[in-house]
Amino acid sequence: MGARRYALIGPGAVGLLYGGRLAAAGHELHIVGRSDVEHLRSRGLVLESSYGDVLLDTVSAFSDVRDVPEVDVVLVALKTTANRQLPELLAPFARRRTTIVMLQNGLGVEARAARAAPGATVLGGLCFVCALKVGPGHARHVDYGPITLAEHGASSVTEAVSAVADDLEAAGVEVTREADLFAARWRKLVWNIPYNGLSVLLDAGTDELMADTETRALVVDLMNDVADGARACGRPLSDGFIAQMLDMTDAMVPYRTSMKTDYDAGRPLELGAIYGAPVKTAASAGCRMQRVEFLWRALQFLDSRRNEPH
Amino acid sequence: MGARRYALIGPGAVGLLYGGRLAAAGHELHIVGRSDVEHLRSRGLVLESSYGDVLLDTVSAFSDVRDVPEVDVVLVALKTTANRQLPELLAPFARRRTTIVMLQNGLGVEARAARAAPGATVLGGLCFVCALKVGPGHARHVDYGPITLAEHGASSVTEAVSAVADDLEAAGVEVTREADLFAARWRKLVWNIPYNGLSVLLDAGTDELMADTETRALVVDLMNDVADGARACGRPLSDGFIAQMLDMTDAMVPYRTSMKTDYDAGRPLELGAIYGAPVKTAASAGCRMQRVEFLWRALQFLDSRRNEPH
Repeated sequence: MGARRYALIGPGAVGLLYGGRLAAAGHELHIVGRSDVEHLRSRGLVLESSYGDVLLDTVSAFSDVRDVPEVDVVLVALKTTANRQLPELLAPFARRRTTIVMLQNGLGVEARAARAAPGATVLGGLCFVCALKVGPGHARHVDYGPITLAEHGASSVTEAVSAVADDLEAAGVEVTREADLFAARWRKLVWNIPYNGLSVLLDAGTDELMADTETRALVVDLMNDVADGARACGRPLSDGFIAQMLDMTDAMVPYRTSMKTDYDAGRPLELGAIYGAPVKTAASAGCRMQRVEFLWRALQFLDSRRNEPH
Repeated sequence: MGARRYALIGPGAVGLLYGGRLAAAGHELHIVGRSDVEHLRSRGLVLESSYGDVLLDTVSAFSDVRDVPEVDVVLVALKTTANRQLPELLAPFARRRTTIVMLQNGLGVEARAARAAPGATVLGGLCFVCALKVGPGHARHVDYGPITLAEHGASSVTEAVSAVADDLEAAGVEVTREADLFAARWRKLVWNIPYNGLSVLLDAGTDELMADTETRALVVDLMNDVADGARACGRPLSDGFIAQMLDMTDAMVPYRTSMKTDYDAGRPLELGAIYGAPVKTAASAGCRMQRVEFLWRALQFLDSRRNEPH
């Protein structure tokens, strides 16, 4: 397939990485942002990545999504804490042949996108990546990078999945094509739920959490809760999956999770998508994930206390 | 009954309060301490209490428990973190007609005392008190103060319980005489387990924990875990007990728990008695208190990290 037209909503580290690679591979790229728009237009985009560095002198950028030209694919790389804006941001793509790819964490984000843009094709894009934003229009890809793609509401690898996967692969990104988005989302939560929350609650990196006997056991307890939730939702984990996650984390460079980064920067935490939605979804399937709920409640307290005036 | 002979091991806030009141009521008092011994001998004891202030110009004090004269009752008011010293500290009272009263928190402390002093009569003394140590030999009684007394291994209110209870009441202290120590210990854990641990984990006072919807729900979840543990151990809580504890805490002045005070002062936390023993005791009765275990693990991490060299 030849060059296609992409829009990127949310020029953070993740968005600049995948959007930058797609632009470098010859696709049209329009970025929707807020404070970075002027910088993107005048100074362009810089990506440092093992997939290949990207330098664009200028970028097509917009403050208002309604100004974006017709596109084939929309990449949504906002934090989920901004998802109340989805109805407004995705309305222009409703009732068209647009593919919307949710490059976000957590559960239920594709359903929100589908409600915001009826008639669009909605994919989940699960990013296994360490990247950070250095400044406006400037991202550094630190480690990992693969994306798992699956279509919301489908039960097979669809044409829309294949088309975006082909584009990303041609741009140097490793892609896994999945039939079952819900199962893929639960699998990703097995990592996100323990490490993101505990890193904030205990002010600890992944290496510290793994080195201490008690917190390592706590990580496993939380993973077992997620496994129970996944099973109750008809998506049991494969044997040995938890052990794989632990091995992978042991082998990782010491890592400050994205939630810890958000917390330290005073940004709101992605609690609804990563904790609230899984807890509620499992509960409605008859499974109470008690320890995940504990962590969620504690994090809500920390998040809300920080945002109160002192 | 006339004047009796008391020894106090551990001249902290709680020990000075009850020991001081007993001395003021005419009982003989010998204190076993460490750094405070010289001060107690030369400068005496000061207690500020609504039960009646106490000023003693000099106190009989010892560094070595083997130097203490024969006594009728030994009050143990050490932190449970010092309980590995019990065999040495209580050995002199074995095989005598001594009553040992454990003025400590948590589960299982009387069994440890009984093993350390075979032949002695061991009581639990559950202190519902806010008190603080102002300096060597100087305590301030801030609020509450009642003691619940029960004999280890008994199933009725024993003579030993009555004798100590009478002495304390004559000294101005409110006392509840209990037949079932194990049941009384579980009831006290309903308060200690949520508030002590969450105050450390979330750096919050009881008032903050009660005011926030999420942490209030977390307190209730933890209390329900303790209720499950108590029931599994054949000591079900009475109907409405949890609601009573919540009401009482709502009515309390904002309170920094003793564990939070220890944490902020860099002292080791009483985790074994307040968390470890209840978790293990409930587990051996077939009940896994998942949320209490979560809190225990997290606190062990915080406690051990603080004690590591940096």
